[in-house]
Amino acid sequence: MKKLVLAYSGGLDTSYCAMNLSKEHGFEVHAVSVNTGGFSPEEIKTIEEKALALGASTYTSIDAVQNFYDKVVKYLIFGNVLRNNTYPLSVSAERIVQAVEIVEHAKKIGAKYIAHGSTGAGNDQVRFDMIFQTLAPEIEIITPIRDNKLAREEEIAYLQANGVDYSWEKAKYSINRGLWGTSVGGEETLTSEKPLPDSAYPSQLKEKEPTQVSLSFEKGELVAINGEKDAPVANIEKLEAIANKYAIGRDIHVGDTIIGIKGRVGFEAAAPLIILKAHHLLEKHTLSKWQQFQKEQLGNFYGMLLHEGNYLDEVMRNIEAFLTDTQKNVTGEVFVSLYPFQFRLDGIKSPNDLMNASFGSYGEMNKGWTADDAKGFIKILSNPGKISNHVNG
Amino acid sequence: MKKLVLAYSGGLDTSYCAMNLSKEHGFEVHAVSVNTGGFSPEEIKTIEEKALALGASTYTSIDAVQNFYDKVVKYLIFGNVLRNNTYPLSVSAERIVQAVEIVEHAKKIGAKYIAHGSTGAGNDQVRFDMIFQTLAPEIEIITPIRDNKLAREEEIAYLQANGVDYSWEKAKYSINRGLWGTSVGGEETLTSEKPLPDSAYPSQLKEKEPTQVSLSFEKGELVAINGEKDAPVANIEKLEAIANKYAIGRDIHVGDTIIGIKGRVGFEAAAPLIILKAHHLLEKHTLSKWQQFQKEQLGNFYGMLLHEGNYLDEVMRNIEAFLTDTQKNVTGEVFVSLYPFQFRLDGIKSPNDLMNASFGSYGEMNKGWTADDAKGFIKILSNPGKISNHVNG
Amino acid sequence: MKKLVLAYSGGLDTSYCAMNLSKEHGFEVHAVSVNTGGFSPEEIKTIEEKALALGASTYTSIDAVQNFYDKVVKYLIFGNVLRNNTYPLSVSAERIVQAVEIVEHAKKIGAKYIAHGSTGAGNDQVRFDMIFQTLAPEIEIITPIRDNKLAREEEIAYLQANGVDYSWEKAKYSINRGLWGTSVGGEETLTSEKPLPDSAYPSQLKEKEPTQVSLSFEKGELVAINGEKDAPVANIEKLEAIANKYAIGRDIHVGDTIIGIKGRVGFEAAAPLIILKAHHLLEKHTLSKWQQFQKEQLGNFYGMLLHEGNYLDEVMRNIEAFLTDTQKNVTGEVFVSLYPFQFRLDGIKSPNDLMNASFGSYGEMNKGWTADDAKGFIKILSNPGKISNHVNG
Amino acid sequence: MKKLVLAYSGGLDTSYCAMNLSKEHGFEVHAVSVNTGGFSPEEIKTIEEKALALGASTYTSIDAVQNFYDKVVKYLIFGNVLRNNTYPLSVSAERIVQAVEIVEHAKKIGAKYIAHGSTGAGNDQVRFDMIFQTLAPEIEIITPIRDNKLAREEEIAYLQANGVDYSWEKAKYSINRGLWGTSVGGEETLTSEKPLPDSAYPSQLKEKEPTQVSLSFEKGELVAINGEKDAPVANIEKLEAIANKYAIGRDIHVGDTIIGIKGRVGFEAAAPLIILKAHHLLEKHTLSKWQQFQKEQLGNFYGMLLHEGNYLDEVMRNIEAFLTDTQKNVTGEVFVSLYPFQFRLDGIKSPNDLMNASFGSYGEMNKGWTADDAKGFIKILSNPGKISNHVNG
Repeated sequence: MKKLVLAYSGGLDTSYCAMNLSKEHGFEVHAVSVNTGGFSPEEIKTIEEKALALGASTYTSIDAVQNFYDKVVKYLIFGNVLRNNTYPLSVSAERIVQAVEIVEHAKKIGAKYIAHGSTGAGNDQVRFDMIFQTLAPEIEIITPIRDNKLAREEEIAYLQANGVDYSWEKAKYSINRGLWGTSVGGEETLTSEKPLPDSAYPSQLKEKEPTQVSLSFEKGELVAINGEKDAPVANIEKLEAIANKYAIGRDIHVGDTIIGIKGRVGFEAAAPLIILKAHHLLEKHTLSKWQQFQKEQLGNFYGMLLHEGNYLDEVMRNIEAFLTDTQKNVTGEVFVSLYPFQFRLDGIKSPNDLMNASFGSYGEMNKGWTADDAKGFIKILSNPGKISNHVNG
Repeated sequence: MKKLVLAYSGGLDTSYCAMNLSKEHGFEVHAVSVNTGGFSPEEIKTIEEKALALGASTYTSIDAVQNFYDKVVKYLIFGNVLRNNTYPLSVSAERIVQAVEIVEHAKKIGAKYIAHGSTGAGNDQVRFDMIFQTLAPEIEIITPIRDNKLAREEEIAYLQANGVDYSWEKAKYSINRGLWGTSVGGEETLTSEKPLPDSAYPSQLKEKEPTQVSLSFEKGELVAINGEKDAPVANIEKLEAIANKYAIGRDIHVGDTIIGIKGRVGFEAAAPLIILKAHHLLEKHTLSKWQQFQKEQLGNFYGMLLHEGNYLDEVMRNIEAFLTDTQKNVTGEVFVSLYPFQFRLDGIKSPNDLMNASFGSYGEMNKGWTADDAKGFIKILSNPGKISNHVNG
Repeated sequence: MKKLVLAYSGGLDTSYCAMNLSKEHGFEVHAVSVNTGGFSPEEIKTIEEKALALGASTYTSIDAVQNFYDKVVKYLIFGNVLRNNTYPLSVSAERIVQAVEIVEHAKKIGAKYIAHGSTGAGNDQVRFDMIFQTLAPEIEIITPIRDNKLAREEEIAYLQANGVDYSWEKAKYSINRGLWGTSVGGEETLTSEKPLPDSAYPSQLKEKEPTQVSLSFEKGELVAINGEKDAPVANIEKLEAIANKYAIGRDIHVGDTIIGIKGRVGFEAAAPLIILKAHHLLEKHTLSKWQQFQKEQLGNFYGMLLHEGNYLDEVMRNIEAFLTDTQKNVTGEVFVSLYPFQFRLDGIKSPNDLMNASFGSYGEMNKGWTADDAKGFIKILSNPGKISNHVNG
Repeated sequence: MKKLVLAYSGGLDTSYCAMNLSKEHGFEVHAVSVNTGGFSPEEIKTIEEKALALGASTYTSIDAVQNFYDKVVKYLIFGNVLRNNTYPLSVSAERIVQAVEIVEHAKKIGAKYIAHGSTGAGNDQVRFDMIFQTLAPEIEIITPIRDNKLAREEEIAYLQANGVDYSWEKAKYSINRGLWGTSVGGEETLTSEKPLPDSAYPSQLKEKEPTQVSLSFEKGELVAINGEKDAPVANIEKLEAIANKYAIGRDIHVGDTIIGIKGRVGFEAAAPLIILKAHHLLEKHTLSKWQQFQKEQLGNFYGMLLHEGNYLDEVMRNIEAFLTDTQKNVTGEVFVSLYPFQFRLDGIKSPNDLMNASFGSYGEMNKGWTADDAKGFIKILSNPGKISNHVNG
């Protein structure tokens, strides 16, 4: 029989695929879901039951949270990456790692087909297909939803006709949860002018009393929260648990899709935003001006290519080598105050702090140089301007 | 007598200069203050009286708010410029225009000397000197505070000995106000870890009831607030009056000084931050991906050179030409909600909105292309990756 | 009848299209060739006769040399654009202007179809289709060669069967001539290791005696050769006539096609290379360091997007505004010596030369600053390094 | 006695320093010359004798050729670095390594002073002083030539008065030789318009018969010439011996000095230019488009900071990590033909060649995709343009 791996999420589209591909098209469907931080054990259990009930021969849940961190999230932190200065690339980043895991699974079990439930209008189809085709050009990609432009109603009708009686009523807001943030889509995000209502966001305000947390970084990685050491992934989750009670990190991203149209998507990402901003502040104290200048450019570029599914381009590895090398001295503690709906960076403490008081303070004269040195410095700095004015008037 | 123009602010340092230079060094002191949005008429009146009392022959107040906007602020908005992703360059930007105004004044009255009160450890000396030397290499620059490393006590003692009995007690926080923001320095900003206390900021929270404002842009310029048309400068001031009641726009900038040391400075800039973010959102809807990509790089670079006093470099004019050209379609209304200590961008409305519903929506299949088109697109997009994997394994 | 504009070159592919589309598919074929510098009046005459003989209803020759210069070549000079540091983008640049002219012609005569002879494997199909679709989405694009993957033999057989008896033997090297260079493809360029033989290049060495020419630029445009004023296009042609006798400007470009594969193409571009290098030298004397820095980045980017057919992206207009603004002082004369197969830049003379002897010479101490100024300059320049070493050891 | 390390070259300026500092100022002078490829054993012998005769207590010749390659040249090749697209940074690059060696030597022997012979108008003083001050802020820098603005005649008079009878007649052209090229200064380079005469270049044409050489690279390093394996440094020297007989690699660099004035300097660098261009060609075949794009920007930036003496900035290490990572597949052979005064790149052969014939050739239709795929690709690529035209007209 034709072995097929289906990227299965438990939603309507991929449920349709599971049944349709096994029942009508003679595929041996091996459903796989890749957990990048969005699924609880209970949810995985439910997904599994559904998959098998719909006709899948096997179901596999791949825990890719650590891989997600090691391959992508770490570099997004090193690079302070916020797409269009706003969006931590939550979903974009997950898709990449999910695709890599799925293609590896397919190779492992010798599948000749991979199916996914993307439509033909979004970014995900590009991210999935590009990685599948690049890493396994011999595997054929099957996409029933894209190919047949199926409407929800048709899918539901088909499933019901086949005795599946799950409730498929559409949630008012489509939610995509993961380690690096949760995206939120709804009727408002299809317009340019409407914000999402507060109620659309999964984390509601539960804590009004401000608090201060401390984030400890070692070579750019988050190694402790409030002085308690743990692995970076655990620290991200710990911080998220603390911060989302404040309903921090909500915003709407407006961006260019790979397909060339503009899209708008809400998101909530308390821990990612706090970590990125805290990390960036620590870098302002520990990196040279030119390191910051180049990091900004390369970080943005890295985010653009990642967003566009170009994760496998060798330049991404090169930039990762660059970013890793910049983190040698990004070590220290960052103090952040949390308030309802917002946070403030209070300050940092670092053995590598270049704003070193013993060397002299901004605005205060010190022993490092004299007034004459400063005047000589400025005089020579003015040479190009003076010459230009002299020559060109 | 030796004609000298003194950049006069009414503070201790420049007051010392006014008296010392006229009395001890035989200069005919012409005090000048350049208003870039920080002085009220009453303050100017007081400054004038002081200057004359201290020995200045004349005092001139130059109103440079419009010039400040035309020469600098406009481009900071076009470029969404936030130094180190945080600081709207409030003071840096003002100094440039002040220096240009002062040197022009000096030339006009035929002064052979310009004096200013900067120390030898900050950025301002560089900004002033560079512009003075470039535009008027024939004028000598006199800087008593820098040259003599005078302590406050010495300056006060000298002034008192000469019968000046103003109170010079040092404010706990040094405040620098202007159209594009207010900087706040204090003992906390000399450390790396301490935030400024709420009380240090000049604008205190006065309004807790959220409100929505609309900002209208035309070719990138702010032409109306809440639908009421006015000149951009007036609109900035109007928005500031509304927004600073919410104590919006406070932060601390950590950056590299021109002198090569790190510095930390607090600021409050309600209107600038709202305008920059609103303008940026409008651009996300109206500019192409590549326009945004290049704008980000050039905007950052423009901010860096401006910060470093390199305003007169011809490349700045070239970038201004670029930025102006990018604003052709940056027209529309942006809706912003104000809350205590924060604001949220709600959405935009623009005749140039490229997220045009009639063309198809993100994630929804449409008439513009078929599933096969999308598959062909991705297949060809995957060519480099496929080849690379085929060749390099 | 169905009105169709055919981009006609007189070659086998487009001749097949002319006959096939008119005869078999009922199109009223309006053949158009756009001259961007490659066709002589005699060649145009021949093309016209062929087109009409093959079944075209009308033939139009559009002279776009001036447009080509105004819209593209001028900016390639301003930006010193050499793709991959080698290729003046000769053909890429022409295709853009040809596409724009063709679509305008089609609109003018009310054609509902545009046909071209590109295959499905090259860059030209992308450049043509993108511009056609963007400027006239209502016009359908017809591409028989691409669609039917026709072999040369099939096309010849079809034409002969229809009584066309032109000789279609394949030239050993396919040559594409234009104002901004001539491309040369052959069996060697399909390999990675073989150079083109000397005989493959259209211009053979005719002059061995070295000579010096002078190129005069005014605001970046070539306004005179050897002191004789003329229009830029005429000057380019004049210089080409002088320089190609020396067989100057041959090279092979290796680059990434839009389609994602690597390609190799020979070219000969005596005048373009001399002009670009002479212009660049003049800029080294007349622009600031930062202007050169930004021009290099934006020039490269402009070349990349132009190469990839992205000419209509608004960012291209923005960069053109930038580039134009940089040319204000790029005025002067450049002296170039021509030798067989090579040229050397001898020097320049410019009223805007910033290497102004009266201001002091490189390596020679002068009146502009003292040893102490230099020492102060360096001391302060060393601050970041000193602090970093002090803190991080 | 006051221990001082003198950077000694055997020339007039440093000879003056050797005698003057030991005789008049009571320093114990330890002369050091750092060989970065420019000195033969005979020259070193002569320099040693001179140093001791002039009053130096000791003389040390440090062989830093391998260090020069490892720390700098290797990365200049990886980055294809040509300052202003012309100059391989020969002298700039050497100074850096020389400074590092000298400061290490001074620390080793416990010297409290370092002296060098630079004037106050060039780049070298900055490169030397910055590195000395950063790596050893406790060591005092002594620069008699800069401080006293001494004329050649005064120096000679002093030396003769002290019984030194070397001939110090000024060579018509000042030559600075090293592994990575030879700089040539003369009266012509002080003008903007005059080229250097052929006779000014140290390597004269000795071979007119063209020849082909092959350069083998492994991960970006030059590991063999004509198939003969050897260490990179030896290969550079071997290639130089072959190529400089053709008088290849002459040019004039016009650039911005660190001091802010423009300078012009001739150079001859046969091996460096051939290696850089051959390496770049190999990269065009083995790197992705985006790798090349980022390498170009970072390579230029690396060259700028190196030129300006900013070698110790941490960003340089970060870029080196990036560049090293890009070289993983830059392996293969490059064929270069040498002719009098010029060379041509013939082609390459590489196991990592991405222009892989088996995958399809440029311009020829292949099995990788269909005409419909190409059309879908272009259709979707046109989306942004179509939308923009639809919205903005």
